[in-house]
Amino acid sequence: MSTPATGPRDALTDVRGLRVGHAQRTGGGWLTGVTVVLAPEGGVVTAVDVRGGGPGTRETDALDPRNLVQRIEAVVLTGGSAFGLDSASGVAEWLEERGRGFPVGPGRVVPVVPAAVLFDLGRGGEWSARPDRGMGRAAVEAAAAGEPGAPVAQGCVGAGTGAVAGGLKGGVGTAAVRLASGTTVAALAVVNAVGSVVDPDTGALWGARRAWAAELGVDGAPLPADTVARARERLSAAQPPPFGTTLAVVATDAELTRAQAHRLAGAGHDGLARAVRPVHLLSDGDTVFAMATGDRPLVPADRPPPAGPVFGAQAAAGALDGILAAGADALTRAVVRAVLSARGVSGPGGTFPSYRELYGLQEGAEGRESADGQG
Amino acid sequence: MSTPATGPRDALTDVRGLRVGHAQRTGGGWLTGVTVVLAPEGGVVTAVDVRGGGPGTRETDALDPRNLVQRIEAVVLTGGSAFGLDSASGVAEWLEERGRGFPVGPGRVVPVVPAAVLFDLGRGGEWSARPDRGMGRAAVEAAAAGEPGAPVAQGCVGAGTGAVAGGLKGGVGTAAVRLASGTTVAALAVVNAVGSVVDPDTGALWGARRAWAAELGVDGAPLPADTVARARERLSAAQPPPFGTTLAVVATDAELTRAQAHRLAGAGHDGLARAVRPVHLLSDGDTVFAMATGDRPLVPADRPPPAGPVFGAQAAAGALDGILAAGADALTRAVVRAVLSARGVSGPGGTFPSYRELYGLQEGAEGRESADGQG
Repeated sequence: MSTPATGPRDALTDVRGLRVGHAQRTGGGWLTGVTVVLAPEGGVVTAVDVRGGGPGTRETDALDPRNLVQRIEAVVLTGGSAFGLDSASGVAEWLEERGRGFPVGPGRVVPVVPAAVLFDLGRGGEWSARPDRGMGRAAVEAAAAGEPGAPVAQGCVGAGTGAVAGGLKGGVGTAAVRLASGTTVAALAVVNAVGSVVDPDTGALWGARRAWAAELGVDGAPLPADTVARARERLSAAQPPPFGTTLAVVATDAELTRAQAHRLAGAGHDGLARAVRPVHLLSDGDTVFAMATGDRPLVPADRPPPAGPVFGAQAAAGALDGILAAGADALTRAVVRAVLSARGVSGPGGTFPSYRELYGLQEGAEGRESADGQG
Repeated sequence: MSTPATGPRDALTDVRGLRVGHAQRTGGGWLTGVTVVLAPEGGVVTAVDVRGGGPGTRETDALDPRNLVQRIEAVVLTGGSAFGLDSASGVAEWLEERGRGFPVGPGRVVPVVPAAVLFDLGRGGEWSARPDRGMGRAAVEAAAAGEPGAPVAQGCVGAGTGAVAGGLKGGVGTAAVRLASGTTVAALAVVNAVGSVVDPDTGALWGARRAWAAELGVDGAPLPADTVARARERLSAAQPPPFGTTLAVVATDAELTRAQAHRLAGAGHDGLARAVRPVHLLSDGDTVFAMATGDRPLVPADRPPPAGPVFGAQAAAGALDGILAAGADALTRAVVRAVLSARGVSGPGGTFPSYRELYGLQEGAEGRESADGQG
């Protein structure tokens, strides 16, 4: 089995047809935003797995694989806690204008827009500064304006604008895996956890692995003892956030049933568990969506299963297992990239140093990328 | 075991502390509305069971008994399909202004407002005439303006304004049971089903029973054959609604855990199954919430269980079973009262005769009550 490679952009948009748009507002009490993942017209198979104890969601019941609506046009990740659910209305409005959604009559659609929120209230200083309908609309417009396969802005953008991860500045990260079969599996994470993304005893990111050192620029090895001690002191002085929520989308171009997509969302939570400790707390609303565009058969045509139903089922299970493992890895890596892309923020809502800043690492390509970015 | 009696109002408000408010708009293309069940300040234990295949919901994941938020201030039932979810934002706004919601910091709350929608788009003629934030706010204001224990308007009000049940006009109904123990169990239903509330072979309402004839004014006996034949002809000429959704709240003043409340919501679906056939279709989004105010111990103090943990558990199970059975019955009866309270509508969005009209029954007290009504 050959080692999976990253996708060309190492981003969610490596899954052909998916677009990502961010909208955010900073300054004047604001530090929040919205990220929209926009499917190609007609929608894609979508599932959700809610594992945090404090979720804020909308239209997640529709995603139960037993239920009617088969395909989803857009998924919304938003700041603003429960208030931020309004941003999904702006996305629904935009979709309806374009006749995109569940068809309910001649020329009539109801866009089913699943959404999940993260807690970032007050991070910019003003408690009432929350994403609204207009910001949701701006995010989906930003997504639509992008080319397919466009790079995805990381760091303090979109729903990651006000994100904090265990006292460090959080944000948006993305990563993609290209399997030997040619199937792409990718993830986008908005890291805003009560738990920590860093091992306080070594300064290494929990999600970093030697094998990913080339892609990530960090290798998971312990940092110098004095750096670790200084960081520890500074972190322990900071107030940990009372509420979190890491939101994510895991996606693939493989053809999955809705039940299989649900499993992919679950695999994403495994990837999250490797990058955030503790995770899935009662005070987190950790939610992972899965989207499957169905561009490629689950079992590639040039690798047909042996004849017979049992072998066929085994081949499908094997192919799905490969996608699940890749989805978990992509999400772990997306969390690491989010943290490495974030820049520290100090303002009326608090001081949230970046990981790079706290551990004396150079701001790398990722960090610079995050300063520009669409939306 | 004595026969349960109805509550004094035979309404959801017989559960002390719960208030009901309706807001609606009719005419000029409109035929839709919102119904809010408002808990006493501090909230009540709330659960949800989504059994329809086409649900539109918000904040239902927060109600999972494993999750953080323990008490809910208000539940929203709304027309407008997925678009109607906006009305919950108006309720959240009103609650936040009063400092009611999940506490997240000094003087700071996030109101978690579970909501479910029903499909009534276009019933008033105008596709874009849907409940919005303002209508949600109006409904919660109407609820707050009512006295505790106030009568609840039934029929074509609130979320039932545009409701249709298998070609007949649907609406809001409510009923309450007072158990011999003194515990109250009540229900409110917004009947808007693809399936039928009436047995086409007899003209009797599925949910009607001889034992309830005094409360309902109908006894479940077959109507005259010529009436049944005429009604059948007229109904078969009508277009059945493509999408439905019956929404309900079942409530009790007993002290329930969140998991027990989940079971009460499930019992509500049994009551629904007895009143609507077929029910829980893919094209319905049937959703039942349960609310438990906790005013009374589950096992009344004057009926202590025999000593020993097993007997205690049995007593609790027995008490809960009584509440579950009463909840199912209350919801069945609420559906019947909704249908009996509805008045026929004929407008640009279609003609929906009432059950009373179609089967030549006098408009009774219920029907007259429904013409006035708060909100």
